[in-house]
Amino acid sequence: MTEPSVPVAAPATLSLKRVAIDTYHENVAYLHRDCPLYKAEGFQALSKIEIQQNGNKILAVLNVVDDDCIVAPSELGLSEQAFANLKLPAQTQVRVNHAEPPHSMEFVRQKLGGTRLNQDKFNEIIQDIGANRYSKTEIAAFIVAVSEAGLDREEILYLTRAMVDSGQQLDWKEPLVVDKHCIGGIPGNRTSMIVVPIVAAFGLLCPKTSSRAITSPAGTADTMEVLANVDLPMERLDQIVREQRGCLAWGGTAKLAPVDDILISVERPLAIDSQAQMVASILSKKRACGSTHLLIDIPAGPRSKVRSMKEAMQLRKLFEFVGDRIGLVTEVVITDGRQPVGRGIGPVLECRDVMQVLKNDPDAPHDLREKSLQLAGRLLEFEADIRGGAGYEVARDILDSGRALEKMNQIIAAQGKQERHFSVGHLTRDIPASSSGTVVEIDNLILSRVARLAGAPMDKGAGVMLLKKLGDTVQAGDPLYRIHAEFPADFDFAVRLASQHSGYRISEHAHELVSWLE
Amino acid sequence: MTEPSVPVAAPATLSLKRVAIDTYHENVAYLHRDCPLYKAEGFQALSKIEIQQNGNKILAVLNVVDDDCIVAPSELGLSEQAFANLKLPAQTQVRVNHAEPPHSMEFVRQKLGGTRLNQDKFNEIIQDIGANRYSKTEIAAFIVAVSEAGLDREEILYLTRAMVDSGQQLDWKEPLVVDKHCIGGIPGNRTSMIVVPIVAAFGLLCPKTSSRAITSPAGTADTMEVLANVDLPMERLDQIVREQRGCLAWGGTAKLAPVDDILISVERPLAIDSQAQMVASILSKKRACGSTHLLIDIPAGPRSKVRSMKEAMQLRKLFEFVGDRIGLVTEVVITDGRQPVGRGIGPVLECRDVMQVLKNDPDAPHDLREKSLQLAGRLLEFEADIRGGAGYEVARDILDSGRALEKMNQIIAAQGKQERHFSVGHLTRDIPASSSGTVVEIDNLILSRVARLAGAPMDKGAGVMLLKKLGDTVQAGDPLYRIHAEFPADFDFAVRLASQHSGYRISEHAHELVSWLE
Repeated sequence: MTEPSVPVAAPATLSLKRVAIDTYHENVAYLHRDCPLYKAEGFQALSKIEIQQNGNKILAVLNVVDDDCIVAPSELGLSEQAFANLKLPAQTQVRVNHAEPPHSMEFVRQKLGGTRLNQDKFNEIIQDIGANRYSKTEIAAFIVAVSEAGLDREEILYLTRAMVDSGQQLDWKEPLVVDKHCIGGIPGNRTSMIVVPIVAAFGLLCPKTSSRAITSPAGTADTMEVLANVDLPMERLDQIVREQRGCLAWGGTAKLAPVDDILISVERPLAIDSQAQMVASILSKKRACGSTHLLIDIPAGPRSKVRSMKEAMQLRKLFEFVGDRIGLVTEVVITDGRQPVGRGIGPVLECRDVMQVLKNDPDAPHDLREKSLQLAGRLLEFEADIRGGAGYEVARDILDSGRALEKMNQIIAAQGKQERHFSVGHLTRDIPASSSGTVVEIDNLILSRVARLAGAPMDKGAGVMLLKKLGDTVQAGDPLYRIHAEFPADFDFAVRLASQHSGYRISEHAHELVSWLE
Repeated sequence: MTEPSVPVAAPATLSLKRVAIDTYHENVAYLHRDCPLYKAEGFQALSKIEIQQNGNKILAVLNVVDDDCIVAPSELGLSEQAFANLKLPAQTQVRVNHAEPPHSMEFVRQKLGGTRLNQDKFNEIIQDIGANRYSKTEIAAFIVAVSEAGLDREEILYLTRAMVDSGQQLDWKEPLVVDKHCIGGIPGNRTSMIVVPIVAAFGLLCPKTSSRAITSPAGTADTMEVLANVDLPMERLDQIVREQRGCLAWGGTAKLAPVDDILISVERPLAIDSQAQMVASILSKKRACGSTHLLIDIPAGPRSKVRSMKEAMQLRKLFEFVGDRIGLVTEVVITDGRQPVGRGIGPVLECRDVMQVLKNDPDAPHDLREKSLQLAGRLLEFEADIRGGAGYEVARDILDSGRALEKMNQIIAAQGKQERHFSVGHLTRDIPASSSGTVVEIDNLILSRVARLAGAPMDKGAGVMLLKKLGDTVQAGDPLYRIHAEFPADFDFAVRLASQHSGYRISEHAHELVSWLE
């Protein structure tokens, strides 16, 4: 049931004030409880108001204030982003009205009611979200509406297109711009820091912007930061990519598919899984970054994001369907997600794995090296000359010859070498095997959690170093992994969880080893 | 996919500060961007933090602040409600941790995935919401999860029970405590102000607390406020009900089914229809208010909340099923919702209708009188002596004899006579019929909207007075209704909408009159 969307007018004006509170993609307005013009209670119940002066107009969620230092009764305060959105100087006399929800919320309700939405409706929803016309609760309703098989594949395409169109798009003016992306879910999977140097050393353009960890113990940006500056302005990133053919930095993407960032800020805390949202999020961001060819890594395993081959295949088809139609050649590899990759979990520890691989250290973790070579090989095969399976050998030659390490050092120099020295956390505890036998299961989620409790990713040296992996035989009491932390409180939390749930299952029967993709 | 819910510990403490911002049922914490202990960005991305000291602990959504006047870098600010929830004095040194979502969010995700929830899971969800452990986005996810046929009738019962148990419950120590409730959707439907005096004059106990309008042009409390004080403390309300057998006041119910208020604060702005939520909301509040017998009014019509007889019957069965099982004898009447009831829409105008009926004015709107007598009659028949259809006659006698008016005057005196005099808005405009014929349709939503634009319910005299109703014959140019407003800007908005969409359909063919419940 909807009503005509004309706002209710209020009679007079308030003086605009900037309130230095960052409400992160939600416009918030602050009104004094004693404001004589507008009975705060009436506004409160509706929860959203419209602030305007001539053509400038925003919607904002209302908070009522009892402290004149924040806003006086004659003032209307706006949070930093709301103030910036309204684009009016402080002390402007503004009108405040009751606001209707944005018109496109009607489409969200239609979706919740089972209706299929067309491209125009997705465009309107995404434009309204991008213009901060949605409150966080409205965004949450949208996220739930598109989750749980709520969208068919054409609708996911519409959503992706709408998200690409919501911001700027880079154009590198080259026919082949490659990128890789892992959907996440297994710790230690730091392949980008090996793949990008290989591919860039070969000469392919790979403008990979990396993310910081949100719910995992380390993102590529967190780990790269152990070695180099990763916070670079867009212009500098652009220059590095053109000079080095690749980069490993964070940021500069806020204007690319900006609605993606807004949706993620609400979606992550809700922890609602949504294939639709995942596909639209990844593909829109990569398309906006100017990629032409994309390799997606889907780790599958019993304690990974994707838990069966059937689910992995569905997701692969979905990525390929949408990717093709937005002009992004998309290949998907389904990889072994039964356990963490490499040995380290946490920025410094993962960085050590990466550098061992790049330096061809005989002690380098074999699985990280192999996976990186496989992925780099597939990326290289996007190049016409290398198609047909030769990619892996080319990638291996680049790595073995030291050219990948050389490229990594060039990228570090270009981004700016890290001036601080980070070392592994000095508080350590080995978690022992409770019985003898074979390691038959390792729980990615528990190990991620232990590493985060230990302080990763904020404390760079915190985390977990795996000493045993799937198939290894152990004696009772042998250390399975080592916890590293920098602060005692974090250390205690991590040790406590690991002592309750080590995350390892040891069996006398080696054949119980969890198989990959049953 | 969930992780073990152990919070990540942070190393040190911050000084607690109360920030005088009312964030209405959402705990909000304010952290300075330069706070040295906790990198604000890391917290921001996770969006929720846990604040604790010894046993006291709350969860709060984080806002980052750049103004030392709000919080200094060494402080942790809490919004008023969050501060009250934590129950610690200002300047207490508190620990701040990353927080996991409340455990029961897992059940919300299960519900979204199609799982049936049992009583224990609903209890846990409702307890967590009541303890302000849910952010607004999490509440929105819950609301969406229970909307749109997401719950079967047993689950709605579980939800209702959980909501009743979330707060205090009144016990009037009488075997028969009656109440009535309309699900809303048609304007001018001010029957409570007639029904309560009739029923109370008869001697039944009717502790009807009334609400203010949120999205409609007037609630019973807004209209009663034209005559009497409606903001009464719980103790005074209790006293009035015992002395007068009834009341028409607002408030005092915050501690009764308190989760209902929290859910409504998120649900209303989203405007997501949910039979489950409606049934649980109404029945839990009435049960907590100590009612034993409840009459529900479901107006049905093409532009009402319920649009078909099938839908109305489903809803009736649902109310009766849940009502019976929580110990509330529930009867449902399905009434004519094709047009507004009475003539006035807006507090003063509706009050005039009500007083005309109570005073037996020959010019009183017949439909309001008849509907009120029907409802009062059904309520009286809850009394054993009157069962079997005599209720209507008893109600009519009470009204015609002036005893209902006398009771109304006693209730007004008990609540305190309104000292201000409110009159109808002095700015008026008649909206004319565009052609000659019969009024065959009236759109409740348009007329509500015009009345709200004119200033109702905040400007008591603003609104709409209907001059023609369904079935009336009109000549082109005859006035259909009159807009009343107090302020020119509101008046202009209302006139503009009414000029575009009068909300009336006139036809030369009287048989096109919209029938009730096709």
